[in-house]
Amino acid sequence: MASNSFGTLFRFTTWGESHGPGIGVLIDGCPAGLAVDEEGINRELARRAPGGSPHVTRRNEPDECVIMSGVFRGKTTGAPISLIIANSDADSSKYEAVAHLLRPGHANYTYLQKYGVFDYRGGGRASARETAGRVAAGAVARALLAEVGIKAAAWLDAAGDYCASGAASGSASGAAPSAGYMESAAHYARSSSIFAPDSVSEDEFARRVAAARDDGDSIGGVVAFYADGLPAGLGDPVYEKLEAKLASAMLSIPACKGFEIGEGFAAASLRGSACNDLFVPGEGAVRTATNRAGGTLGGISSGMPLYGRAAFKPTASIFQGQPTLDLDGNPAEFMLPEGSRHDPCVAVRAVPVVEAMCLAVLADAWLMNRAARV
Amino acid sequence: MASNSFGTLFRFTTWGESHGPGIGVLIDGCPAGLAVDEEGINRELARRAPGGSPHVTRRNEPDECVIMSGVFRGKTTGAPISLIIANSDADSSKYEAVAHLLRPGHANYTYLQKYGVFDYRGGGRASARETAGRVAAGAVARALLAEVGIKAAAWLDAAGDYCASGAASGSASGAAPSAGYMESAAHYARSSSIFAPDSVSEDEFARRVAAARDDGDSIGGVVAFYADGLPAGLGDPVYEKLEAKLASAMLSIPACKGFEIGEGFAAASLRGSACNDLFVPGEGAVRTATNRAGGTLGGISSGMPLYGRAAFKPTASIFQGQPTLDLDGNPAEFMLPEGSRHDPCVAVRAVPVVEAMCLAVLADAWLMNRAARV
Amino acid sequence: MASNSFGTLFRFTTWGESHGPGIGVLIDGCPAGLAVDEEGINRELARRAPGGSPHVTRRNEPDECVIMSGVFRGKTTGAPISLIIANSDADSSKYEAVAHLLRPGHANYTYLQKYGVFDYRGGGRASARETAGRVAAGAVARALLAEVGIKAAAWLDAAGDYCASGAASGSASGAAPSAGYMESAAHYARSSSIFAPDSVSEDEFARRVAAARDDGDSIGGVVAFYADGLPAGLGDPVYEKLEAKLASAMLSIPACKGFEIGEGFAAASLRGSACNDLFVPGEGAVRTATNRAGGTLGGISSGMPLYGRAAFKPTASIFQGQPTLDLDGNPAEFMLPEGSRHDPCVAVRAVPVVEAMCLAVLADAWLMNRAARV
Amino acid sequence: MASNSFGTLFRFTTWGESHGPGIGVLIDGCPAGLAVDEEGINRELARRAPGGSPHVTRRNEPDECVIMSGVFRGKTTGAPISLIIANSDADSSKYEAVAHLLRPGHANYTYLQKYGVFDYRGGGRASARETAGRVAAGAVARALLAEVGIKAAAWLDAAGDYCASGAASGSASGAAPSAGYMESAAHYARSSSIFAPDSVSEDEFARRVAAARDDGDSIGGVVAFYADGLPAGLGDPVYEKLEAKLASAMLSIPACKGFEIGEGFAAASLRGSACNDLFVPGEGAVRTATNRAGGTLGGISSGMPLYGRAAFKPTASIFQGQPTLDLDGNPAEFMLPEGSRHDPCVAVRAVPVVEAMCLAVLADAWLMNRAARV
Repeated sequence: MASNSFGTLFRFTTWGESHGPGIGVLIDGCPAGLAVDEEGINRELARRAPGGSPHVTRRNEPDECVIMSGVFRGKTTGAPISLIIANSDADSSKYEAVAHLLRPGHANYTYLQKYGVFDYRGGGRASARETAGRVAAGAVARALLAEVGIKAAAWLDAAGDYCASGAASGSASGAAPSAGYMESAAHYARSSSIFAPDSVSEDEFARRVAAARDDGDSIGGVVAFYADGLPAGLGDPVYEKLEAKLASAMLSIPACKGFEIGEGFAAASLRGSACNDLFVPGEGAVRTATNRAGGTLGGISSGMPLYGRAAFKPTASIFQGQPTLDLDGNPAEFMLPEGSRHDPCVAVRAVPVVEAMCLAVLADAWLMNRAARV
Repeated sequence: MASNSFGTLFRFTTWGESHGPGIGVLIDGCPAGLAVDEEGINRELARRAPGGSPHVTRRNEPDECVIMSGVFRGKTTGAPISLIIANSDADSSKYEAVAHLLRPGHANYTYLQKYGVFDYRGGGRASARETAGRVAAGAVARALLAEVGIKAAAWLDAAGDYCASGAASGSASGAAPSAGYMESAAHYARSSSIFAPDSVSEDEFARRVAAARDDGDSIGGVVAFYADGLPAGLGDPVYEKLEAKLASAMLSIPACKGFEIGEGFAAASLRGSACNDLFVPGEGAVRTATNRAGGTLGGISSGMPLYGRAAFKPTASIFQGQPTLDLDGNPAEFMLPEGSRHDPCVAVRAVPVVEAMCLAVLADAWLMNRAARV
Repeated sequence: MASNSFGTLFRFTTWGESHGPGIGVLIDGCPAGLAVDEEGINRELARRAPGGSPHVTRRNEPDECVIMSGVFRGKTTGAPISLIIANSDADSSKYEAVAHLLRPGHANYTYLQKYGVFDYRGGGRASARETAGRVAAGAVARALLAEVGIKAAAWLDAAGDYCASGAASGSASGAAPSAGYMESAAHYARSSSIFAPDSVSEDEFARRVAAARDDGDSIGGVVAFYADGLPAGLGDPVYEKLEAKLASAMLSIPACKGFEIGEGFAAASLRGSACNDLFVPGEGAVRTATNRAGGTLGGISSGMPLYGRAAFKPTASIFQGQPTLDLDGNPAEFMLPEGSRHDPCVAVRAVPVVEAMCLAVLADAWLMNRAARV
Repeated sequence: MASNSFGTLFRFTTWGESHGPGIGVLIDGCPAGLAVDEEGINRELARRAPGGSPHVTRRNEPDECVIMSGVFRGKTTGAPISLIIANSDADSSKYEAVAHLLRPGHANYTYLQKYGVFDYRGGGRASARETAGRVAAGAVARALLAEVGIKAAAWLDAAGDYCASGAASGSASGAAPSAGYMESAAHYARSSSIFAPDSVSEDEFARRVAAARDDGDSIGGVVAFYADGLPAGLGDPVYEKLEAKLASAMLSIPACKGFEIGEGFAAASLRGSACNDLFVPGEGAVRTATNRAGGTLGGISSGMPLYGRAAFKPTASIFQGQPTLDLDGNPAEFMLPEGSRHDPCVAVRAVPVVEAMCLAVLADAWLMNRAARV
């Protein structure tokens, strides 16, 4: 409960279900004096929105937000910023046919156990639609970080069995690529409809997503995130390490099953002599010769680029009959109703969400860090 | 700042440095009426303590806690439980030789950048010693969960290039093993000095740790965690998903670089038709035929066993000279002082810490869940 | 910042300015399964709304909320409940004449100092309009508490120099009246347009408010709050004492300058032998013969009725010219623009707000208390 | 539960019972680089300590703290500061005679109802001894605020029926005295054993306290607090108003029954035309001609001195037999055991505690305010 908020000083709360009048996000703690407008936020929302790409669900909604409060003459006032996005396409009648069934891979069973409520419509708070609010909050965080030269990006690093960074490095692992790779990937992904880091992987991803769609099936994927321009010092030791916040941020996204920073799981099979990043003189600041750590040391940003990855399982909703139980425990078959929304690879749409969560973590850490010294 | 606390209702805060009079943990929010004693907590501390095993650092401290408050006649009173562990072996003079150097792979550089303080002694709050407080808090959480039949365990799943669950399943991935495997692993690890899940991996791990020690080097590893007896309903949707809390808990442990739940990263290359766990009738409750999800759906426990893994990088401290910089930015060589404590595989000592953090997350989630319904 | 939320488990956040498209409140942490509807909330809003009484500001708005989320088929689902109230009467042009002036007794000076933003319109977040969200949240809290037989009420105890409880007891102090008085006062106030506890004080209050209005001036007042049906055990020792939460709740209401519980300030001049409430046998539970404590002991509810008072300063906005400064520091005169909204006694409208905050504190404490014992 | 912490960024947690090995406070979030030492903290502790004055309880303990962590070479490091104070005088045997009785005016009844635990010894967490930790935290907050020229003080404004500020102003109310009065009071109180603001009230207070002691009775009192040097801008609108935080801080002190800021309750009987503080040019900043508001507008500091009062009930423990019940509900008589500690006026010892809580609120608000603007 009271579990719909994220962040400490830069704090946002999302609300709303996919089947209701609308959804929204409330940002509390954004400093005053920041230029924010609906147009900029809507540009970000459009990246996440269904319908904007052949690779994602065909739900057709403009996803445009209205700023209800907290902005006066184009600048934040320090008051909470309330953003609302209307639900325009929310016909729940088609779900009635499956209203009495447990949905494989979905949260309706656990919601029922927890709350005693069975909302058979489109996923309730577990709906991917909830993530629109995150993207809006991320847009505000981005504006805040831009003031101090911090930028963040995300891209699709793997879909199914194809991994872009693995292919680029000739290794199986996508961990900790070079700064040059990351900058180029961020740039390419910004205008790729599938958020691919380069044209080769764009094709590979598209082919796999199309194949899954054709089979009425789905595939998983991995999203990479990256931030540059960070000063050393963001994040806190112990329980609020920057990577702990990022991990929590990513695992809070629907369908996310894993997180790593820097070399991540690949670090487990390295030796210390090969894994340590050595300090070398840099321009105006110390740098490390390599960045296997992914930009933090002891939970605090080191000034090197931040890099990590989040793994997403394949979409649970598929166009294939699956054995299940009804609410009385009797065997049944679950079949997604005709015309249901369907994302063959939820990792694609997760890219702007991962980016937004990364931005939110950094904006909060940046404000928190103002209290580090007398 | 104010970043040394973990949890919401069952909340603990650790304090202390490895070079000071002592360390401690303050548990606030433990319900009244729970049987807790020093002996039980000390048993857990002994598992984590250096010196107790040939595989870990040779620092020699008994690590026995004193209960300062919150327990009356052997039962918790609802008041904060303050536990103190004296530092008995804290000679910091040997660190003076390296007091002016940046330590590769360590947090002293980032602490300096953040706080303007350069404590050259044993790691400050980044010291592994901080984790003793977590283990003590975990012991209290374990007692609380035992009241309702929830138990949790952890073991070493991989060290260097050997992965126990991968070997057991014949696959590269250690994800989501069977309930039988997990129960047996938890049982074996409880009395294994290297926390191995079986005798074969015990040997494999020991050999790799010894080889790294002989080379003055270190290796990484992966720790698996597991919990059983959970009712469906623990955890909260959206930002406080059970897996988000667990991810944050694990990434807050020193040297942790990755987290996954259930199939984790392996899920990214599966198809939905192969990844969904199907609902089947169970004894008294619905179950799923498989458990690739690792025990949660939509962030809420499903009643299936909880399973996940945390990846640890190799210990940054190695007995090899490493190029670095001094505080003035001049090239230098960092060599660990003779007689320094050294864990060739920090993942080994991380096992009881992972277990403790898992217990703390579950105890908090269990209390939070009491507010889910009217 | 991030300062627009109240409560821990039952947590609400308000947003919006009086001059914008609307205001709202987001309730996060309301247990699932509670019957809630717009009609019930709107009834509460109508009590606070301007225009509904001759004694308050003549702003004319229906103040009807729309439930945007968190309720399915008339019951709460455990998801955040988003309520929006449109602003229908928000012409800010008349404020332009005073846009360059510091407003005596108002927060526009301190907002400017804090945020660097000078929103000259109707008070921004300091506007009384913000309190509508509190009343809506209080309505939901009331429904929750009704499930366990807890009810709360508030009334106007003093306006200007007339104090109802003082008159009733023949003493100057309004502290800690009898249970019979409180029940009767709560009942009478429910249908009194000025929230008076009896007909005599209703006349006295109305006369004073009218006199102030006729003079273009304003008066202060004191609001009493009361709750019954509380079990012993709500509230927490030390920093989250029930009275500490209530004090914070009341002082967060615009224009509130003081808080007391039970005898309050009058207790300071009593002797212990006269102030202690003695334990006596009760029906099914221990009671105290008197209730000078006002329903708590050591921060925890005792099972006796909760009683306290909150003092409100006279409305700062008056229809009299007042010397002030302009934004450049030059002497000027502040005169409220013709047709401005004006509450001659803000304490009147504060009554439903005090009641709502009391309900919110109790709902939160009631949920928190579920974690007190194993 | 988890209710033993205070503050957001500058956050402290107290622990310990009066009958145990010791008590302590853990300060988390103190910025790095602040000069802090045991001697300075112990000087503050000595002011609160029993035994130091003829007017307070005769418990004889030195109350000297040991800094366990967070300070390196005399400066804070950013790590949590753990302070421990040993209990040297904690013979609980004399309480056994009353171990089966409800103690009038005390929290043992409500603790029993809440936790199911009946700790008959000296008050558990409700003991005044808990407040030593607050004073220690306040000493650190004072050092932090001194860096920016903010200072705070408290004094005894009333004991029994004598009110120092009332006598000084010729009015019954002690509200909002002149800046000159406050400065002089703060100075005098610093070296007065009864924390009186001037020599006349020192005698009056001492006489009343002595009379109560002679009668085996107790009296209540009022403590004034004051801070100067505050910039405009501290505190946050809505639920974290500076006065809301202060109210919560004061009401969390044992025996506190009321709070007011500025004119407080007296404001309720004023007219707006008499209550508004008018803006006038000041040295380098706008000031107000009067300060009836007590230093805040809309919850944010205005730059004028902060002033308020906290009311304390008479000590519940008196040396007179009082009718009560035993744990089985049978009538009994409660008599304080011979040799029990006894404060005839708890408000006296509350003075350094009020001061400490005021300092803690301001330190937190000062850090929070760093995030107010881009």
